[in-house]
Amino acid sequence: MVEHSGLDIMCLNKYSPASSSSSSSNAERKLFSKLKVSLTKKYPQKNAETLSAQYGTNLLLIGVSVMLALAQHGPAVKEEHLLAFITALMLMQLVWMLCYMIRRERERSPVPERDAHAGTSWIRGGLTMLALLSLIMDAFRIGYFVGYHSCISAVLGVYPIVHALHTISQVHFLWFHIKDVIKKYETFERFGVIHAVFTNLLLWCNGVMSEAEHFLNNHRRRLTALGYANLTTEAEPHCNCTTSVCSMFSTSLYYLYPFNIEYHIFVSAMLFVMWKNIGRTLDRHSNRKRPSTRSPGLLLGPLLGLLALASSITVLVVYLIHVEKSEQTREAAISMFYCYGVVMLSCMCGASGAGLLVYRVEDWPMDTGSNPSRQLDTELLLGSSLGSWLMSWCSVVAVAAAGRGSPSFRWTCLAYSLLLVLEKCVQNLFIVESLYRRRRDPDDAPVPEIFSVTPAPMVPPYDGIVNRAYETQDRRRAALEGEAPENRAAFSMKHSDVTLPAGNRLNVTPGRKRQILKNITIFLFMCNVSLWILPAFGCRPQYDNGLEQETFGYSVWTTVLNVAIPMNLFYRMHSVASLFEVFRKV
Amino acid sequence: MVEHSGLDIMCLNKYSPASSSSSSSNAERKLFSKLKVSLTKKYPQKNAETLSAQYGTNLLLIGVSVMLALAQHGPAVKEEHLLAFITALMLMQLVWMLCYMIRRERERSPVPERDAHAGTSWIRGGLTMLALLSLIMDAFRIGYFVGYHSCISAVLGVYPIVHALHTISQVHFLWFHIKDVIKKYETFERFGVIHAVFTNLLLWCNGVMSEAEHFLNNHRRRLTALGYANLTTEAEPHCNCTTSVCSMFSTSLYYLYPFNIEYHIFVSAMLFVMWKNIGRTLDRHSNRKRPSTRSPGLLLGPLLGLLALASSITVLVVYLIHVEKSEQTREAAISMFYCYGVVMLSCMCGASGAGLLVYRVEDWPMDTGSNPSRQLDTELLLGSSLGSWLMSWCSVVAVAAAGRGSPSFRWTCLAYSLLLVLEKCVQNLFIVESLYRRRRDPDDAPVPEIFSVTPAPMVPPYDGIVNRAYETQDRRRAALEGEAPENRAAFSMKHSDVTLPAGNRLNVTPGRKRQILKNITIFLFMCNVSLWILPAFGCRPQYDNGLEQETFGYSVWTTVLNVAIPMNLFYRMHSVASLFEVFRKV
Repeated sequence: MVEHSGLDIMCLNKYSPASSSSSSSNAERKLFSKLKVSLTKKYPQKNAETLSAQYGTNLLLIGVSVMLALAQHGPAVKEEHLLAFITALMLMQLVWMLCYMIRRERERSPVPERDAHAGTSWIRGGLTMLALLSLIMDAFRIGYFVGYHSCISAVLGVYPIVHALHTISQVHFLWFHIKDVIKKYETFERFGVIHAVFTNLLLWCNGVMSEAEHFLNNHRRRLTALGYANLTTEAEPHCNCTTSVCSMFSTSLYYLYPFNIEYHIFVSAMLFVMWKNIGRTLDRHSNRKRPSTRSPGLLLGPLLGLLALASSITVLVVYLIHVEKSEQTREAAISMFYCYGVVMLSCMCGASGAGLLVYRVEDWPMDTGSNPSRQLDTELLLGSSLGSWLMSWCSVVAVAAAGRGSPSFRWTCLAYSLLLVLEKCVQNLFIVESLYRRRRDPDDAPVPEIFSVTPAPMVPPYDGIVNRAYETQDRRRAALEGEAPENRAAFSMKHSDVTLPAGNRLNVTPGRKRQILKNITIFLFMCNVSLWILPAFGCRPQYDNGLEQETFGYSVWTTVLNVAIPMNLFYRMHSVASLFEVFRKV
Repeated sequence: MVEHSGLDIMCLNKYSPASSSSSSSNAERKLFSKLKVSLTKKYPQKNAETLSAQYGTNLLLIGVSVMLALAQHGPAVKEEHLLAFITALMLMQLVWMLCYMIRRERERSPVPERDAHAGTSWIRGGLTMLALLSLIMDAFRIGYFVGYHSCISAVLGVYPIVHALHTISQVHFLWFHIKDVIKKYETFERFGVIHAVFTNLLLWCNGVMSEAEHFLNNHRRRLTALGYANLTTEAEPHCNCTTSVCSMFSTSLYYLYPFNIEYHIFVSAMLFVMWKNIGRTLDRHSNRKRPSTRSPGLLLGPLLGLLALASSITVLVVYLIHVEKSEQTREAAISMFYCYGVVMLSCMCGASGAGLLVYRVEDWPMDTGSNPSRQLDTELLLGSSLGSWLMSWCSVVAVAAAGRGSPSFRWTCLAYSLLLVLEKCVQNLFIVESLYRRRRDPDDAPVPEIFSVTPAPMVPPYDGIVNRAYETQDRRRAALEGEAPENRAAFSMKHSDVTLPAGNRLNVTPGRKRQILKNITIFLFMCNVSLWILPAFGCRPQYDNGLEQETFGYSVWTTVLNVAIPMNLFYRMHSVASLFEVFRKV
């Protein structure tokens, strides 16, 4: 496979003998032929990126605008329209994936370039589980359609079939092609990948919207039962079900929604990394995976984590039972939730803080190599925190604005909200720091990593950190010719430092510290799973406590929640994935 | 000035004789002292970035949540609270800027590092103009406060004074320090800069909110006048004005809002670049500014641009007069706006498309050097397009959903919306491509740039593109040892190609092409100014046409508009700035 960077092709083109024979008569014909060549061949990477990103976002925005119209329950825009649009997009993605796989199969080059960091096998395994649950959901949807087929649109039957097909082939694609670094037909493939990214994002939006609507309907039903409001609930089809299990189908659908939602957002993140990798030149020596090590002394972390998980499930069950009953039990349930939350979040803050302290004590070097996958992880983590931060600050404002007659859980709600902000900040710091640290194995401690020239055959001889430090130094020296004296002093100082016998100090406690970090990580992992389970399965006191609704009004507050809760769910799932990565790496 | 990268400090610390004397008795004391050292000294850059970004976003979110509560007009949260919060943030920023400037003044190093791409002088000049208009606005606000001082909160008087002070010192800061690359007290300065970024963003949000509210009030007043609704308008203070010009102050305030809004968003973008630059090592040879060249043959572009500008102002005046009158003139005004928009956008699409074609014909090389300022420009351009794309797609959905009885401008509205999407796509492509192209001067055309080893004393000898191509080639060869045959062939081919006399072909038309590009750029510049003026001064048919409101409902549609219109205004202003940059560069 010949790889041409845009630059090379440009040079070849410009100076090829064919195009440099200059006679002014056929200048125009040449211009056109040149235009044709440039249009087909060397569309610059930056532009292809921009163009495909614009294509993708517009796809998503079309979908979102149809959804907004749907939310209004007007007569003109129906669910069928949205589903037809999404089905068309999925079919397009199917065709592209098929083409891509066939082409890859045919021109299989001996050593295809692959990004080792993209889509680790455990994340693909997790996605396969989520995909299986999505398939069950599709089966339920088909069953529902069969039951009501006489009075609902055929699109509602076609959609789950296409979705199932899409899920199966997409999982296959993820297993075998997600690490590919595409170097051929870059512009075309860029469109294919970005189409896949945004199709999955749209499916995610659709899932989130359906779930939010279902939840709002539930909430209204509760309010009606308590005598607060009198609102009609969800529209049912206007005919009888021909099979006996229709209601079972539609009820259990909503327990599967959270998994389907997570599936799509994760797939789109992975595909986005693939998109970022198109045309990239990997540097081999940072593109290797480190083998995972055994983890001794894992006791406290998993134990406390299991405790947290168990208590969360208890809280979930108690909450869901009590919130439906009288006003008093409802308030008690909300109070219980906030108390539980305060304890949980304090523990998590403590654990993350301890982890950060361990890093401050231990001088593990930072890894500054380019890695789109990790960078995306970091950005997504910070970006998805925004939703729940906004929610928390709104709660704080609401508590501050609330009068004397406000409910008893006011102050616990304040503490909970502030802790939620703090916990996300500290946890983000911990995860980011963990992801950007390089691991030091305790076994090779006596040899300072500074001089570890790895003798592996594929690896160029400049591995380890001192070389990078020298590199920086050299580059800086080249750049800042006039600077010198102190700089040079620091340079020579480092030289002499390195000769000191530093090995005997280094292998005192790193094993112990790794153990602490592993325990912390596994504890945070379980806590994040717990905090995902609670809102995913219906424990959302922000809807029920009425505190914020008073200050912000029903429509503003539900809008905030409809945006923030899905973001928060994604945040929890994503930090679970990141913490697993950290666990393997530490 | 000694510059320590995080890595260097780490190495120094680890192997310094003081900390390597290993006796196990005082291990704990050592641990703590080490912790102290690490806490004070070597906080890693990635973490400092994360931490400060989190601090900044939380500041913004607190402000936004107070604003959301304010929008509800409840009794508890008042405008004073928000203004007091913003005033406190501005004072903090003032203190930081003062500290920074004093410190810089004291330890002035002979050659401070500065990023040549950050904040060009013409953008600072433009900002100074906007700042002056902001100062006038502050004066009006103070006048308003003096008039009503007996019945409004003192915060409303303190706020404009602090804001004026803030504006003056910030402009001073921008002129003398925005290019600084901070290398000392990095963590502290990072917080200072990000505080400034988010304070300005919050001021932007506040401006946008006030303007949206004012606009909604106007809209309601119109609807009431036409007999559609019966809503109360803005609350006036409950006492009489002591000076005679209070109403003049409050009216003219709203003509100055657009400038104030643009001022703050631009300042925050510039400060964000400064934040990105903290601790960065500049490579000298890409960090030079190119001198601007004279621009001959500028006729068609400016002429057409002026025509566009004049017609926009006409449309604005006609629209504002007619939309207030009867139902019929209102519909005519909206129709006129859409027709004007279709013509305007078609011309812009054509111009941008022509520009792209010129780039396809001309083989100017791409500039791939690192440049945070340019990257931010690109991202902001794409990001701020989202708002108006969403608006356009909503319009498309609304037109598709509208029944037979819908107004006559239905199809022009459809065409307008689709063209708006297309125009932004093509214009973004044009701007991005222009920013990433390196300029080839027509004067030195006979010497292919490939071998231009610039003899300037500060520049290392590897300038121009062929060297970079060789570098890539070499690196790739080192990386892909086993690949070889075709690769090597391509390599040697290039060698021989370079020897061909290619100069005589290159200087045929580049001057002509530059001229075309300059004309296109100036035309697009004027068009974008026109399209900024229209919505900024009240021509927003999206509120008045009633088409989308029917499909999406009042609350959803006004929410979409309140988000999308400020983004669109920012988009226009930002593309004006980018096009000016392109104009200088081409």
